[in-house]
Amino acid sequence: MSGNSFGNIFRITTFGESHGEALGVVIDGMPSGVKIDREFLAFEMSRRRPGQSQLTTSRSEADAVEILSGVLDDVSTGTPLAMVIRNTSQRSKDYRDLENIFRPGHADFGFFSKYGIRDVRGGGRSSGRETCARVAAGAVAKMMLASYGIKICAYAKEIGGIKAETFDIDEIEKNPARSPDPIAAEKMMESVALARAENDSVGGRVNCFIDGVPAGWGEPVFDKLDARLAAAMLSLGSVKGIEFGEGFAVTQMKGSENNDPMRAGKKFASNHAGGILGGISTGERIEFSIAVKPTPSIAQKQNTVDKNGEEQEIVITGRHDPCIVPRIIPVVEAMAAIVLADFALLNRCAQINKN
Amino acid sequence: MSGNSFGNIFRITTFGESHGEALGVVIDGMPSGVKIDREFLAFEMSRRRPGQSQLTTSRSEADAVEILSGVLDDVSTGTPLAMVIRNTSQRSKDYRDLENIFRPGHADFGFFSKYGIRDVRGGGRSSGRETCARVAAGAVAKMMLASYGIKICAYAKEIGGIKAETFDIDEIEKNPARSPDPIAAEKMMESVALARAENDSVGGRVNCFIDGVPAGWGEPVFDKLDARLAAAMLSLGSVKGIEFGEGFAVTQMKGSENNDPMRAGKKFASNHAGGILGGISTGERIEFSIAVKPTPSIAQKQNTVDKNGEEQEIVITGRHDPCIVPRIIPVVEAMAAIVLADFALLNRCAQINKN
Amino acid sequence: MSGNSFGNIFRITTFGESHGEALGVVIDGMPSGVKIDREFLAFEMSRRRPGQSQLTTSRSEADAVEILSGVLDDVSTGTPLAMVIRNTSQRSKDYRDLENIFRPGHADFGFFSKYGIRDVRGGGRSSGRETCARVAAGAVAKMMLASYGIKICAYAKEIGGIKAETFDIDEIEKNPARSPDPIAAEKMMESVALARAENDSVGGRVNCFIDGVPAGWGEPVFDKLDARLAAAMLSLGSVKGIEFGEGFAVTQMKGSENNDPMRAGKKFASNHAGGILGGISTGERIEFSIAVKPTPSIAQKQNTVDKNGEEQEIVITGRHDPCIVPRIIPVVEAMAAIVLADFALLNRCAQINKN
Amino acid sequence: MSGNSFGNIFRITTFGESHGEALGVVIDGMPSGVKIDREFLAFEMSRRRPGQSQLTTSRSEADAVEILSGVLDDVSTGTPLAMVIRNTSQRSKDYRDLENIFRPGHADFGFFSKYGIRDVRGGGRSSGRETCARVAAGAVAKMMLASYGIKICAYAKEIGGIKAETFDIDEIEKNPARSPDPIAAEKMMESVALARAENDSVGGRVNCFIDGVPAGWGEPVFDKLDARLAAAMLSLGSVKGIEFGEGFAVTQMKGSENNDPMRAGKKFASNHAGGILGGISTGERIEFSIAVKPTPSIAQKQNTVDKNGEEQEIVITGRHDPCIVPRIIPVVEAMAAIVLADFALLNRCAQINKN
Repeated sequence: MSGNSFGNIFRITTFGESHGEALGVVIDGMPSGVKIDREFLAFEMSRRRPGQSQLTTSRSEADAVEILSGVLDDVSTGTPLAMVIRNTSQRSKDYRDLENIFRPGHADFGFFSKYGIRDVRGGGRSSGRETCARVAAGAVAKMMLASYGIKICAYAKEIGGIKAETFDIDEIEKNPARSPDPIAAEKMMESVALARAENDSVGGRVNCFIDGVPAGWGEPVFDKLDARLAAAMLSLGSVKGIEFGEGFAVTQMKGSENNDPMRAGKKFASNHAGGILGGISTGERIEFSIAVKPTPSIAQKQNTVDKNGEEQEIVITGRHDPCIVPRIIPVVEAMAAIVLADFALLNRCAQINKN
Repeated sequence: MSGNSFGNIFRITTFGESHGEALGVVIDGMPSGVKIDREFLAFEMSRRRPGQSQLTTSRSEADAVEILSGVLDDVSTGTPLAMVIRNTSQRSKDYRDLENIFRPGHADFGFFSKYGIRDVRGGGRSSGRETCARVAAGAVAKMMLASYGIKICAYAKEIGGIKAETFDIDEIEKNPARSPDPIAAEKMMESVALARAENDSVGGRVNCFIDGVPAGWGEPVFDKLDARLAAAMLSLGSVKGIEFGEGFAVTQMKGSENNDPMRAGKKFASNHAGGILGGISTGERIEFSIAVKPTPSIAQKQNTVDKNGEEQEIVITGRHDPCIVPRIIPVVEAMAAIVLADFALLNRCAQINKN
Repeated sequence: MSGNSFGNIFRITTFGESHGEALGVVIDGMPSGVKIDREFLAFEMSRRRPGQSQLTTSRSEADAVEILSGVLDDVSTGTPLAMVIRNTSQRSKDYRDLENIFRPGHADFGFFSKYGIRDVRGGGRSSGRETCARVAAGAVAKMMLASYGIKICAYAKEIGGIKAETFDIDEIEKNPARSPDPIAAEKMMESVALARAENDSVGGRVNCFIDGVPAGWGEPVFDKLDARLAAAMLSLGSVKGIEFGEGFAVTQMKGSENNDPMRAGKKFASNHAGGILGGISTGERIEFSIAVKPTPSIAQKQNTVDKNGEEQEIVITGRHDPCIVPRIIPVVEAMAAIVLADFALLNRCAQINKN
Repeated sequence: MSGNSFGNIFRITTFGESHGEALGVVIDGMPSGVKIDREFLAFEMSRRRPGQSQLTTSRSEADAVEILSGVLDDVSTGTPLAMVIRNTSQRSKDYRDLENIFRPGHADFGFFSKYGIRDVRGGGRSSGRETCARVAAGAVAKMMLASYGIKICAYAKEIGGIKAETFDIDEIEKNPARSPDPIAAEKMMESVALARAENDSVGGRVNCFIDGVPAGWGEPVFDKLDARLAAAMLSLGSVKGIEFGEGFAVTQMKGSENNDPMRAGKKFASNHAGGILGGISTGERIEFSIAVKPTPSIAQKQNTVDKNGEEQEIVITGRHDPCIVPRIIPVVEAMAAIVLADFALLNRCAQINKN
């Protein structure tokens, strides 16, 4: 309702501010009997963690996840699975100067307009740090989806104008850009380093594909699989667009080009649709791509106003990624997993005799 | 839950199949005291109606809306407002041949996989005709939003590769393409006519902007204003992508270019963000753009399979738009209105002393 | 949200006023593959219909249900199942006199306080006639539950101070009181006739039991099976109390008396709990009992006020049951069926490997 | 969905098992600007805490609440307010013996049937200890309702067959029975002591009244104010019944006796309805009463079965209240506060021009 829950049956509720006591998530609707792999959970958290490379912020936090409930002897029990991540590296004083001023490119003005109050410490609830809780929940969703044979992979398609031209899945996690093209990855990193040197930042594009989703997932009309994935991705503050399959290229295609013919065995001869037709999975690979804006926190002078509406200049110090792309990748996977976990369960209810 | 409801407080539930008895919608959460303008409702329905021009299907239905409840003396009472649109022009026999066969580019295979049963008559629930009910609900949402001074406008930015280069809002409803550029409109129509002649179809792009939304609307984290608008637009079966403000262009922008500085009076000097930052409205114009795929129903031979997985050829006859863009425009506006009506009410609950 | 929907997966949304155009319901989440028995639907509607006997109002309506969607060849398709019941016997002028006055025992003053507007025609949305739509939905829920082997039975335990002392299930539908004790039924009817003669009304008690629910239905904590049944029953305007199993008698029992021992085969030696422990079904018969208040519409002079707060006398004419009990019985069954249909589906999601 | 969330706008999600790491709650939809009184929070927790007297369990926990988010400088910010209560006194070994056996009167068998897995440590999620999180959330709801001038009071009306005959609100918190009648309170305590001596337990009745709710709260049809309160109360595992106003007494009343006449100033001359008509508050005192079963955990031999369905005898040791009534009282108030906080916000959306 007020925006901090997501999902219908597999439903997460997150909480926490960037520089508050802790971030966390409660998963309600987690089925019993799923093996909970704490190492995998820690691994997923580490993928999102800052301080991994020059591309990302130098803020360093262990982001250890404490599981408070819902698990017994490393198996889910069916009760809510709550996880908490303590904030250990708050530097609230970094933000004292921003108390009365709205940072360009951030939700500051919107939050102030909405609530009349604003947690100025690092953006509070609107900080990217909020996504910690999503990654924890996504790791659990991935554990659940493993029993369906589903695999999710996101990667940097483009950073700072540099596009990945080749695709080797094994390269993705080997370079700090998370690009499947190791040569492009180096150029991406140079582009980021340059932006940092200029007190600026760069945007990029993340692609994601999902294998193993059977035909028939997604709910007709308003909860189409792509509608839910779009909501999931646009719920990330720095995402400004999403496209599925051919995406915006369809604007210039003909029906005879864009339609995917079917062939024996109920497979498709092509996948322009990106694995979703009429909001329901076709059994083919699900594919989408998102636009990630350049980090709004930049260390150069910008014009803004304060609470009184008076013009001010602002220079944002503190620790900030000059490019959000590499760190958003595990978050994109997490949100995709959360969407699919929900549809997996919902789909059990589609037919009277199915189950 | 099962996908036929949308919204939290202002919540619509739609029903009906393309060639069933009727389509309809129930609006729960409609506040009392809104003037219900039946002429405006009929006008909005007529904007979506087929048969208006050569660009759209020749199927002609009056699409008269009957209001069954929730209105007394032309004012909303606060109880559910239910509306029904009878199907008067069903031609079920057109679809008899398709009973055992999956149409390429359609949800047929997905529905069959999900439910084990499929209403073959014109796509049943997955038909674009379902959007009738959305337009009726959207008309009511617009009546409600009028009291907030909000105006919504969508138009054809591109059809069949032809882009609108000029913008005159008064031109939009004057040409069958619904383009704000009358010269481009003519070329768009030629492109559509050509596609029809070739038994093919074309895609396009719809832009939408919304004026009058105050700063502070949208809910943090999962129900961001753009996340909900994205869900709303991707819930249209032929939409394959959405972008807000600069959209995919941000992939190649720098932070210093993309950030919108603020100036005295709490206004913004630019609007790269498209009126939404961190999921919350900034008070500036809200802007987004969507990709509309070419109509999948084309009258040329296509390869597909039947229920048994055996390969078949299919030629789709019946009445189909060679381009969806003009008719989806009122639907886009309707969905945007429904999203905003919900956030208008939700926002009343943000502060303890606000109301 | 605004109170006209009920259920999570099997979710109904109702609409309509007592003297408006129509009443209706949309069932979202109806699984595909359920045989839709239109005769049974009509039969259930007839059970609720007025004009059956001297115990009930003389208003007579066929209450024919039109199914608008979701059914093909008498089988549910998985899409929303919408049903409409036309109001054919409105007598709005009966209510003209009540326009500015609040009827004692009714929701009139509450609706006026809430909405500032009130549909005075027969109570509008707060009329018992609203339950028509529930009975239609309940009939469909019963069709779905039949495949689980579940049977629901409600009956008059007490009317006007007369209690049923014997129990013969076959007697229930044979007498207008719907009592399982035919001798008590006659006295109940006398009591009602006397109340009518005195321009007064009487209350009573309805018992309900449900057989065939397997152990494990209901959701822990807030959506306990009894919590949902209680919400369902208290959502009937004339119900003032509910108790499960021993109910209020537990206030004077000891733990050693109230606990139900288990015996071989995972059965229970007694059923003081009424088939529900900790909100989850035990596999035993589910039993509850509700208190039904005397009809508030009575044809004797009562003191009340008008919209201006000035004191007025009121005599309610029109067609009103002197006792609600017999007609509420099919509604109680309907609501119980709707609750169970939802839990049947939810329970498919409890275990990762269950389905 | 899966039962661990409650409310629409003011929505709580709880988690935690009796002998797990912690219990907790996330409140989503908390408006900004509410003063958070940590002392009051601690006080409310202490009211529920065990170990206060001979009537309650000797298990003693500080139940300190840590607020993890949503509060800045002791004022709510509008973001989710998360609270955690650590379990510090787990005695899991007390429960080792119960691993394969179902306790009579408990949810053990239901949970096992539902999930195939059961947290045997003290009932896990089905333990009364779960209500800790509700009291914390209820304390926050009370802080919010204070700005509306609403006061909630629950008390022991009956314990072990002894009824409170007098009412002095100041006495309630002065005696361990929480009875408004100090003389009855002593007898109630004797009755409990006797039950304990006999390794047995006793039930009772809790009454609750709420002052200050304006006319017009509650949503029509399914979310009636009494329906939501009933769901809230029946969501407590030991509650077996609820009645509003005259409650079950209406079964033997006439309409002319039960109707509440209105008088000048839009007040009621009586309040048989218990402050709710047609599910909407009348502005009068809201009154309900609940039946609390005797504690199922008793230290005498009982017959039951194990997981294999084989008959076993069980004697439950550990720390258990011989009467739940005194400790459920703050929980009843908490749940009532949570229901009302939600309706307070919902009611802001009823009229287009209201706010």
